[in-house]
Amino acid sequence: MQCNLAVIKGDGIGPEVVTEAMKVLNTVGEKFGHTFDYEQILMGGCSIDATGVPLTDEAVAVAKSKDAVLLGSIGGNTSTSPWYKLPPNLRPEAGLLKIRKELGLFANLRPANLYDELKEACPLKAEIAERGFDMMMMRELTGGLYFGERHTEEVDGVMTAVDTLTYNENEIRRIAIKAFDIAMKRRKKVTSVDKANVLDSSRLWRKVVEEVAKDYPEVELEHMLVDNCAMQLVKDPAQFDVVLTENMFGDILSDEASMISGSIGMLSSASLNETKFGMYEPSGGSAPDIAGQNKANPIATILSAAMMLRYTFDLDKEADAVENAVKQVLKDGYRTIDIHSEGTQLVSCSEMGDLICERI
Amino acid sequence: MQCNLAVIKGDGIGPEVVTEAMKVLNTVGEKFGHTFDYEQILMGGCSIDATGVPLTDEAVAVAKSKDAVLLGSIGGNTSTSPWYKLPPNLRPEAGLLKIRKELGLFANLRPANLYDELKEACPLKAEIAERGFDMMMMRELTGGLYFGERHTEEVDGVMTAVDTLTYNENEIRRIAIKAFDIAMKRRKKVTSVDKANVLDSSRLWRKVVEEVAKDYPEVELEHMLVDNCAMQLVKDPAQFDVVLTENMFGDILSDEASMISGSIGMLSSASLNETKFGMYEPSGGSAPDIAGQNKANPIATILSAAMMLRYTFDLDKEADAVENAVKQVLKDGYRTIDIHSEGTQLVSCSEMGDLICERI
Ligand SMILES: CC(C)[C@H](C(=O)O)[C@@H](O)C(=O)O
Ligand SMILES: CC(C)[C@H](C(=O)O)[C@@H](O)C(=O)O
Repeated sequence: MQCNLAVIKGDGIGPEVVTEAMKVLNTVGEKFGHTFDYEQILMGGCSIDATGVPLTDEAVAVAKSKDAVLLGSIGGNTSTSPWYKLPPNLRPEAGLLKIRKELGLFANLRPANLYDELKEACPLKAEIAERGFDMMMMRELTGGLYFGERHTEEVDGVMTAVDTLTYNENEIRRIAIKAFDIAMKRRKKVTSVDKANVLDSSRLWRKVVEEVAKDYPEVELEHMLVDNCAMQLVKDPAQFDVVLTENMFGDILSDEASMISGSIGMLSSASLNETKFGMYEPSGGSAPDIAGQNKANPIATILSAAMMLRYTFDLDKEADAVENAVKQVLKDGYRTIDIHSEGTQLVSCSEMGDLICERI
Repeated sequence: MQCNLAVIKGDGIGPEVVTEAMKVLNTVGEKFGHTFDYEQILMGGCSIDATGVPLTDEAVAVAKSKDAVLLGSIGGNTSTSPWYKLPPNLRPEAGLLKIRKELGLFANLRPANLYDELKEACPLKAEIAERGFDMMMMRELTGGLYFGERHTEEVDGVMTAVDTLTYNENEIRRIAIKAFDIAMKRRKKVTSVDKANVLDSSRLWRKVVEEVAKDYPEVELEHMLVDNCAMQLVKDPAQFDVVLTENMFGDILSDEASMISGSIGMLSSASLNETKFGMYEPSGGSAPDIAGQNKANPIATILSAAMMLRYTFDLDKEADAVENAVKQVLKDGYRTIDIHSEGTQLVSCSEMGDLICERI
């Protein structure tokens, strides 16, 4: 198979971790007889430095012409980097929001699970960690407060800022359908999270999700208020299978879910549109403090590449091979610094990439 | 001193826990020579049953005529209670939102701390729990998405719901000033939480908070993005002193902070306006499943009454007496069912109230 990718190495540790993911994809290509073609585009701080904007329309056009995008990470230190002196619409994050919108990537999937080998890193107490957890956070990614009309103006001499949270039934339906489809391949439970006791958008959300649920009689649907969900994630994460929510709640809850796994350097993500097209990136940030030191954990990016094999190219066997290689490398005791503990072998970013390639 | 209170027992366990808090206030009155006068008003489900609405204007007028409100809890089981078949503006929670707005209770204070005696209940691992934590969540309570214009309508045949997130500089300034004032009496650190990389309201928030900070050179101000804050609360809660944030983020984060303490039945809250007036209530919900069984933990409500003594009546000595009595009762090994563990003595709600009164 011929797989055409746009690659955004981005800022911070982005270039290092993407290089390892490409190494892994190339190994998959050799073993299974596929060709990966990469075209690099700029986004984020590096794009600002080169072009003055965080994402050019040309870069968007390149991304659109490919099958998928592999992304490292973007952004820098918000207090010290000159990128954060720019107006908001020219900062690195604006590039990320633009590519999500331009490519119609409305469905953000972020698995959060506990690896047996990394249970020690879990910040929850042993009693909870021992039960383990394995959930899929499904966040709507192109609606809500992120993309609503906003403005700041003086009203009767008082500065006033307004953001708008809008959802229509179609936007809710398409992400709900994705969530139920994915639940069917997992443990058949969807927890839809909203604030229906306050927000109109949440009441519409709940109504549409219930309509969609009728087409999936095998899937158990549960509604949960967002404040309660923030509690339940800490108290009893094992209760969750697929968690479905809107953009801003999803931003908060998926980060909370990542953290309770204790190893954000292990967590992948996919952002999908209505077709097989997707953008795949690690859940963690650009970690400018350790950038360029060959210390970053490339596993999240490598697992994101595995998600790409599975969701965009339907290469399940190949995706399994990558995921199993990651499990094996952990069993064999290799760790990057972020997940290192006594009795395990500390390796660099590129060594970790090599070790995973050897196991494919 | 003559202290005039409006009392809202409310629904679920509300009546039981408020009764114990009144017992404690009466004991304080006897010991220290104060008189507490109580006028009961209805709010929530019990008000719907009696009057058809969750809060009457007459009840609001009574509350306004007093020095403070002592509140139990409102609401029932959202799936089974008939209250949740009503339109949103007639449900129990609408009463709560109405009283907050009518009384101008813009500052919600929710302490979240770990009691030495209850460290076992903390869902975080020992390494983190041992460091302990003691933070004050300061949530803006009368602005933002909760009180913005909202509507649901068909746009080109597609149902569309809109909620509005509005803040003006005055709303931000007054809560920021409260946060810095409180930080001055604590460990002199304010973490202001926003989503300034996306929202206009957050950018205005950050700007105004920075202006206010200039008047408090001794207080360290730090900004944190809401998604990061959701992670840091789990990873390292000891880093926080005062956490300042807007209404919706505060709803989510203060519940998360309660949960990491592992004993929500211990956590009090105060909602204040620009004067000494305040409404005081436990952080937990109405727990309809255990209502009427004399099993609920009254400590959160008793500690809320202590906050009332401190913030509304400036009775610091009396507040200390209540807080110390609570600590003593825990040291003496008494526990309600929610915080019970091996080797401690299980007591009922009313017994817990008596035991605390004895220690004042
Ligand atoms: C960088 C920021 C705009 C972004 C978001 O809030 O969506 C990030 O936090 C994420 O979750 O991908
Ligand atoms: C009941 C609900 C409207 C309320 C809120 O969201 O403010 C509650 O969750 C709270 O935190 O007091």
